[in-house]
Amino acid sequence: MDKQISERVVERLPKYYRYLQELCKNQIQRVSSKTISKALNITASQVRQDLSHFGGFGQTGVGYNVEYLRDTMKEILGINNVHTAIVIGGGRIGQALISYQGFKGENVFVKAVFDVTTKHLTGVKGVEVYNVSELESYLSKNHTDIAIISVQKEQAEKVAKRVVDCGVKSIWNFAPIDLYFDGDVVCENINMSESLMRLIYKSKS
Amino acid sequence: MDKQISERVVERLPKYYRYLQELCKNQIQRVSSKTISKALNITASQVRQDLSHFGGFGQTGVGYNVEYLRDTMKEILGINNVHTAIVIGGGRIGQALISYQGFKGENVFVKAVFDVTTKHLTGVKGVEVYNVSELESYLSKNHTDIAIISVQKEQAEKVAKRVVDCGVKSIWNFAPIDLYFDGDVVCENINMSESLMRLIYKSKS
Repeated sequence: MDKQISERVVERLPKYYRYLQELCKNQIQRVSSKTISKALNITASQVRQDLSHFGGFGQTGVGYNVEYLRDTMKEILGINNVHTAIVIGGGRIGQALISYQGFKGENVFVKAVFDVTTKHLTGVKGVEVYNVSELESYLSKNHTDIAIISVQKEQAEKVAKRVVDCGVKSIWNFAPIDLYFDGDVVCENINMSESLMRLIYKSKS
Repeated sequence: MDKQISERVVERLPKYYRYLQELCKNQIQRVSSKTISKALNITASQVRQDLSHFGGFGQTGVGYNVEYLRDTMKEILGINNVHTAIVIGGGRIGQALISYQGFKGENVFVKAVFDVTTKHLTGVKGVEVYNVSELESYLSKNHTDIAIISVQKEQAEKVAKRVVDCGVKSIWNFAPIDLYFDGDVVCENINMSESLMRLIYKSKS
């Protein structure tokens, strides 16, 4: 596998995976770059170029083997492994994240939620509830792959630092401020406010 | 203003705006490209290049006039104008979106929420609640700039088509399927599942 995969290609990987997963469910065995191209709104040549990074499993006139490509993609993405997660911040977004059903497909399991007040969080099925003061104590006892941050803007950096200091390597940030990390800590920022601004900008162009 | 702004620049515009807004709040009057660069994790030369698209309001050794740049950016983004929105799909994410406080800064006001069952939605402050069957009737009477879609994957395309047929030009999509539109309809897809996959991929690289 090519180690020098650009960020733009990484952006598209999950799209390919999701589409291939869909095809598998519908028992479609082969797919052409042209069909993928149409479904994902990416040019066919881009599709061929992207997929070539992961070994040449396309065949001219025959197309890609859907199941094989899906499984390879799943392995490349790393979602064949189980990942544990905690949510910090149990507001509306935090609550939505806890009960969101989409994580199971990625083998991500939310184990606990932390907030300054926890009363409103009791009864969240299968998820332990803690006061945020117990964060370090929890992390010292429970291996956690991903910290999902959905606190207020002002608290986000501080909370992120606390989990990183406890050895968490992946931050999924929903607070309305982008977080950046040095070293081996990775982060994805979901910034709804920025997305909304882009939408408004595009609508007036 | 340069009409040929690349998508990558558009991606960064809201980041600049948000940062400038922050500086204004803290009564900072001038800022250098270097300071912006550090805060946003973008190279200083990229900052200068990006901002040059919007007129040369930077001055060597003096920096940018924060308030002027913020106001210009606000106008460029179009968020100085009020936009009305509806939410379709009142599940956890829909509910989070309705009560999310972040939209006011972008002058976006959610006026109504639609779902197949509406009982659980009563009491959402300031937001009218309708059965989704009333969508066309509502849109014929109420000008709506943005439709926020937070329905199940299977319903997303159909619901989007219904609002577009009623003249809505902007779609903000939270359903776990990317939507694309021809013509003058614009769309921003927020795909949490894809973001999570990217995070997992990056953590194993």
